[in-house]
Amino acid sequence: MKKLVLAYSGGLDTSYCAKYLSQDQGFEVHAVSVNTGGFSKEEIKEIEEKALALGASSYTSINAIATFYEKVVKYLIFGNVLKNNTYPLSVSAERIVQAIEIVNHAKKVGAQYIAHGSTGAGNDQVRFDMIFQILAPEIEIITPIRDKKLAREEEINYLQQNGIDYSWQKAKYSINRGLWGTSVGGEETLTSHLPLPDSAYPSQLEKELAKELKLTFNKGELVALDGEKDTPVANIEKLSAIASKYAIGRDIHVGDTIIGIKGRVGFEAAAPLIIIKAHHLLEKHTLSKWQQYQKEQLGNFYGMLLHEGNYLDEVMRNIEAFLTDTQKNVSGDVFVTLHPYRFELNGIASDHDLMNASFGSYGEMNKGWTADDAKGFIKILSNSGKIANHVNQNND
Amino acid sequence: MKKLVLAYSGGLDTSYCAKYLSQDQGFEVHAVSVNTGGFSKEEIKEIEEKALALGASSYTSINAIATFYEKVVKYLIFGNVLKNNTYPLSVSAERIVQAIEIVNHAKKVGAQYIAHGSTGAGNDQVRFDMIFQILAPEIEIITPIRDKKLAREEEINYLQQNGIDYSWQKAKYSINRGLWGTSVGGEETLTSHLPLPDSAYPSQLEKELAKELKLTFNKGELVALDGEKDTPVANIEKLSAIASKYAIGRDIHVGDTIIGIKGRVGFEAAAPLIIIKAHHLLEKHTLSKWQQYQKEQLGNFYGMLLHEGNYLDEVMRNIEAFLTDTQKNVSGDVFVTLHPYRFELNGIASDHDLMNASFGSYGEMNKGWTADDAKGFIKILSNSGKIANHVNQNND
Amino acid sequence: MKKLVLAYSGGLDTSYCAKYLSQDQGFEVHAVSVNTGGFSKEEIKEIEEKALALGASSYTSINAIATFYEKVVKYLIFGNVLKNNTYPLSVSAERIVQAIEIVNHAKKVGAQYIAHGSTGAGNDQVRFDMIFQILAPEIEIITPIRDKKLAREEEINYLQQNGIDYSWQKAKYSINRGLWGTSVGGEETLTSHLPLPDSAYPSQLEKELAKELKLTFNKGELVALDGEKDTPVANIEKLSAIASKYAIGRDIHVGDTIIGIKGRVGFEAAAPLIIIKAHHLLEKHTLSKWQQYQKEQLGNFYGMLLHEGNYLDEVMRNIEAFLTDTQKNVSGDVFVTLHPYRFELNGIASDHDLMNASFGSYGEMNKGWTADDAKGFIKILSNSGKIANHVNQNND
Amino acid sequence: MKKLVLAYSGGLDTSYCAKYLSQDQGFEVHAVSVNTGGFSKEEIKEIEEKALALGASSYTSINAIATFYEKVVKYLIFGNVLKNNTYPLSVSAERIVQAIEIVNHAKKVGAQYIAHGSTGAGNDQVRFDMIFQILAPEIEIITPIRDKKLAREEEINYLQQNGIDYSWQKAKYSINRGLWGTSVGGEETLTSHLPLPDSAYPSQLEKELAKELKLTFNKGELVALDGEKDTPVANIEKLSAIASKYAIGRDIHVGDTIIGIKGRVGFEAAAPLIIIKAHHLLEKHTLSKWQQYQKEQLGNFYGMLLHEGNYLDEVMRNIEAFLTDTQKNVSGDVFVTLHPYRFELNGIASDHDLMNASFGSYGEMNKGWTADDAKGFIKILSNSGKIANHVNQNND
Repeated sequence: MKKLVLAYSGGLDTSYCAKYLSQDQGFEVHAVSVNTGGFSKEEIKEIEEKALALGASSYTSINAIATFYEKVVKYLIFGNVLKNNTYPLSVSAERIVQAIEIVNHAKKVGAQYIAHGSTGAGNDQVRFDMIFQILAPEIEIITPIRDKKLAREEEINYLQQNGIDYSWQKAKYSINRGLWGTSVGGEETLTSHLPLPDSAYPSQLEKELAKELKLTFNKGELVALDGEKDTPVANIEKLSAIASKYAIGRDIHVGDTIIGIKGRVGFEAAAPLIIIKAHHLLEKHTLSKWQQYQKEQLGNFYGMLLHEGNYLDEVMRNIEAFLTDTQKNVSGDVFVTLHPYRFELNGIASDHDLMNASFGSYGEMNKGWTADDAKGFIKILSNSGKIANHVNQNND
Repeated sequence: MKKLVLAYSGGLDTSYCAKYLSQDQGFEVHAVSVNTGGFSKEEIKEIEEKALALGASSYTSINAIATFYEKVVKYLIFGNVLKNNTYPLSVSAERIVQAIEIVNHAKKVGAQYIAHGSTGAGNDQVRFDMIFQILAPEIEIITPIRDKKLAREEEINYLQQNGIDYSWQKAKYSINRGLWGTSVGGEETLTSHLPLPDSAYPSQLEKELAKELKLTFNKGELVALDGEKDTPVANIEKLSAIASKYAIGRDIHVGDTIIGIKGRVGFEAAAPLIIIKAHHLLEKHTLSKWQQYQKEQLGNFYGMLLHEGNYLDEVMRNIEAFLTDTQKNVSGDVFVTLHPYRFELNGIASDHDLMNASFGSYGEMNKGWTADDAKGFIKILSNSGKIANHVNQNND
Repeated sequence: MKKLVLAYSGGLDTSYCAKYLSQDQGFEVHAVSVNTGGFSKEEIKEIEEKALALGASSYTSINAIATFYEKVVKYLIFGNVLKNNTYPLSVSAERIVQAIEIVNHAKKVGAQYIAHGSTGAGNDQVRFDMIFQILAPEIEIITPIRDKKLAREEEINYLQQNGIDYSWQKAKYSINRGLWGTSVGGEETLTSHLPLPDSAYPSQLEKELAKELKLTFNKGELVALDGEKDTPVANIEKLSAIASKYAIGRDIHVGDTIIGIKGRVGFEAAAPLIIIKAHHLLEKHTLSKWQQYQKEQLGNFYGMLLHEGNYLDEVMRNIEAFLTDTQKNVSGDVFVTLHPYRFELNGIASDHDLMNASFGSYGEMNKGWTADDAKGFIKILSNSGKIANHVNQNND
Repeated sequence: MKKLVLAYSGGLDTSYCAKYLSQDQGFEVHAVSVNTGGFSKEEIKEIEEKALALGASSYTSINAIATFYEKVVKYLIFGNVLKNNTYPLSVSAERIVQAIEIVNHAKKVGAQYIAHGSTGAGNDQVRFDMIFQILAPEIEIITPIRDKKLAREEEINYLQQNGIDYSWQKAKYSINRGLWGTSVGGEETLTSHLPLPDSAYPSQLEKELAKELKLTFNKGELVALDGEKDTPVANIEKLSAIASKYAIGRDIHVGDTIIGIKGRVGFEAAAPLIIIKAHHLLEKHTLSKWQQYQKEQLGNFYGMLLHEGNYLDEVMRNIEAFLTDTQKNVSGDVFVTLHPYRFELNGIASDHDLMNASFGSYGEMNKGWTADDAKGFIKILSNSGKIANHVNQNND
């Protein structure tokens, strides 16, 4: 029998696929969901039951949260990556790891086919297909939703006609949850001018009173929250629980899709934004000017390629080596205050702080150098401009 | 007599210079202040009186607000320039224009000397000296504060002994106001861990009720506020007046000084931050992916060189030509909501909006291409990775 | 009747298309060839006769040499563009201009179809199709060679069966001539290890005696050769005639195709290489360090996008504005000596030469600054490293 | 007694320093020379005798050839670094390693002073002083030549008056030899228009007959020459011996000095140029497009900072980590032919060659994808341009 691994989320599209592929197309469907931080135990249980009810021969839930952190999130923090200075790449980053886990699973169970529920108008199809084709060119990719351009109603009708009567009422907003943030799509994000209403965001404001927090980094990783040590993943989750009560980290990302159209998506990412901004502040104190300059360029580039599904390009490993090397001294505490809808960075404390009072302070004269040193410095710094101005002043 | 132009601000340091240079050193002191947005008419009047009382032979106030906008601010907007992703370069940008105006004035009045009040431990000495030396290498630079490393008390004593009895009580915070923002220094900014208290910021929260605003850009310039057309400079000033009542745009910049030490400075820049973020959003809708990519790299670089006083390097003109050319289609409205301490970007409307519904929407299948087109696209996009993986998979 | 414009070169592939499309497919075929420097009058005459004999309703030869220079070659010189530090993008650059001319012609004659002879495994199909689709999405693209995957023999048989009996003997090397160089493909370029034999290159060594030349640039453009003024296009052609007798400018380019595979192609480009290297030398004397730094980054990027057919991306116009602005002072003479298979750059003379003896010479002390100035300069330049070393030395 | 380490080369300037500092200034002078590839055993013996005769208390010769390779040359190869696309940074690179060795030696012997013979108008003073000050801020730097601006004759007279009668006849060309190339300065290099005569270069043409060579790289390092394995350093030396007989690798570098003036220096660097170009060709076959793109940008930047003496900036370590990571698959053979004054790259053979025939060849249709795949690819690649052109076509 034709063995097929289906990337299964429990939603309408992949439920249609499960039924259609197992019953109409005669595949032996092995449903898999990859948890990169969005699913609770209960939800996974529910997804499993649904998958089996829809005709799947097996269901596997892969916990890839730690892998997700190690393979991608860690570098997004090292690189302070915010796509277009805004978006922590929540969904883009997850898809990569999900695809890799799925293709590994397919190889393990000896599947000749992989199916997923993406349409033909988004980024996810590219991220999935690229990774599948690169890592397992021998496996055929099946995408019923893309191929048949099915409307929602057609899918529901098909499932009902085949005795599946889950309620598929369309949520007003499509939500994608994960360790590194939650994306929110709705009718407003299809326009250029409308913001999402407050109610569209999964987290609502619950706390009004400002709260101070201390984030401790070690070589760029978040190792403690308010002095309590834990794994970076656990710290991200804890911070997320605390900060989302302040409705922090909401915004709308407008970006270029891989297929060349512009797209707009809302997101809520309290922990990612606080962590990236805190980490960035710590770097301002501990890295040289040129380290920051090159990190910014390479971090942006890394985010662009990740967003576009090019995670497997070897240049990504090279940039990861660069980023890791930059973190040697990015250790210390960052002090943050949470407020409703926003947060403030108060300052840092680090053994590696290069703003070190013993070398003199900005704007105050000190013992490190004399006025004459400063004048000599500026004189020679002016040489090239002085020459250029002299040579070219009569020529413009 | 030795003619000297003194960059005069009315503060203690330059007042000392005025007295010391005219009386003790025998210079004919021509005091000049260059207004890049920080001074009211009354303040200028006061500065003039002080200058003359201190022994200046003449006083000139140069209104350089429009020049400041045309030479620098415009490009900071085009380039969305925020140093280290934070600081709109408020002071750095002003100094450049002030230096150019001063050296032009010195040439006009035939001065052989230029004096300024910078110390030997900051950026301003570099910005001033470099521009003076490049544009007028024949003029000698005089810097008593830097040379004599005078303490505040010594300056006050000297002035009192010479019959000048202004009250020089030290403000708790040193403030530098200008069109493109206000910097705030104090004892907290000399540490790495302390934020500035609310009271340190010149503008205080006066409005609580959210307010919607429409910013209209034409080829990258802010040409109207809520539909009312005016010059970009006037619009910046109006927006500043409105938004500073919300205490928006406060932050602390941590950066690398030109002389190699780290510095920390608070700032308040409501209008610059709103304008840059609004302008950036409009660009996300109207520019290609590669335009945004290159703009980010060049914008950052432009900000770095400007910060470091390298404004006269010809590469700056080249980047300005690049940035200007990118703004051809950056026209349209941006919708913003002001809240206490923060603002939200709601969306945009533009004839040049590339997120154009007639070409299909993100995630929804459309008529522009088929599932097979998408599959062909991804297949060929995977070629290089497929080959690399095949060739190298057994070699790692 | 279905009006079709065929990009016609006179070769086997497009001759097949001419016959097949006019006779079997019933198109009204309007053959067009765009001359970007590769065709003589006689060749064009021959191509015309062939086209009409094959069933074309009309034939048009478009002279696009000046356009090619103005739209592309000029900027390749300004940017010193050598793909992978080797290849002057001879063919890539031509295709862009040919595509634009063809689509303009198609619009002028009101064609609903454009046909070209590219296969499905190269760059040219992408360059052609992209420009056609972007500039005229309403025109359908027809590509028989790509669609039918025809072998050479099948094409010849078809033509013979239809009474066309040109001799189509396959040249050992496929040659593509143009203003900006000649590409050479053969069985060796399909391997990774074999060079092209001397005989494969169209130009052969005819001169042994070294020859000196003076190239005069004005704002980056080649305006005179050995003091004789002419248009840049004429100067390129003259230089090409002189230098190709020295068999200069031969090499093999190994690059990444747009479709993700690696490709290898020989080329001969005497004039482009001499001009770019001479122009680059002139820039080393006339531009600031940062101008050169940014030009290198943007020039490489420009070449990459051009190579990949992204000529119409607006960022290309922006970079052209940048490059043009950098050429303000790139004027002067460059002295070159031609030798068999190589050339030497001897030096330059320019009013804008920043290596100006009156400011002192490299390594020789001078009056511009003192030993103490130099020591102050270095001391302050060392600040950041000194601090970093002190802060982190015990932490590694 | 005041212990001083003198960077001693045996030349006039440092000989003056040895005598002057030991006899007139009362220092205990410990002369050190650091061999980065330029000195033979006999020369070192001679330098030692001279140093002791001039009053040095001790002389130490440090063999730093292997260190030079490991710390710098290796990365210049990995990054294909040619300053301004021309100069392999022969001297700049040596100075860094020499400075580090000298400061380590000074610390070892407990010296309170380091002296060197640089003038105040070149790059070397900056490279030396920066590294000394960063690594040993407690050691004072003494530079008699810079401070006293001595003319050659004054130095010779002083030495003669003090009984030192070596012959100091000025060589027509000042030569600096090292593992990574030889620099040549003379009266021509002080002009902008004159080339160096053939006779100025240390190596002269001795071979006319073309010679084939095979360079074998392993992870970017040159591990064998014509199949004979040896250390990279030995291979560089062997290649240098062979290729310099062909007078290969001569050129003139025009560059921006750290102190802001332009400088011009001849060089002869047969082995560096052959190795870099061969290594680069191997990378074109084994690296992805984006690896090459980022390597070029970072390699140039690395070269710039190295040239300017910023070797100790942490960003250099980060870039080295990046470069090292890129070399994983840069292994294989490169075939080169040497000719008088030039060389040709014939091709490569590598297990990691991504130009792999089994995936189809450039320009020839193959089994990896169909015409429809290619058309889908291009269609979607055109999306963004199509939209931009449609939206903006009536607006320009």
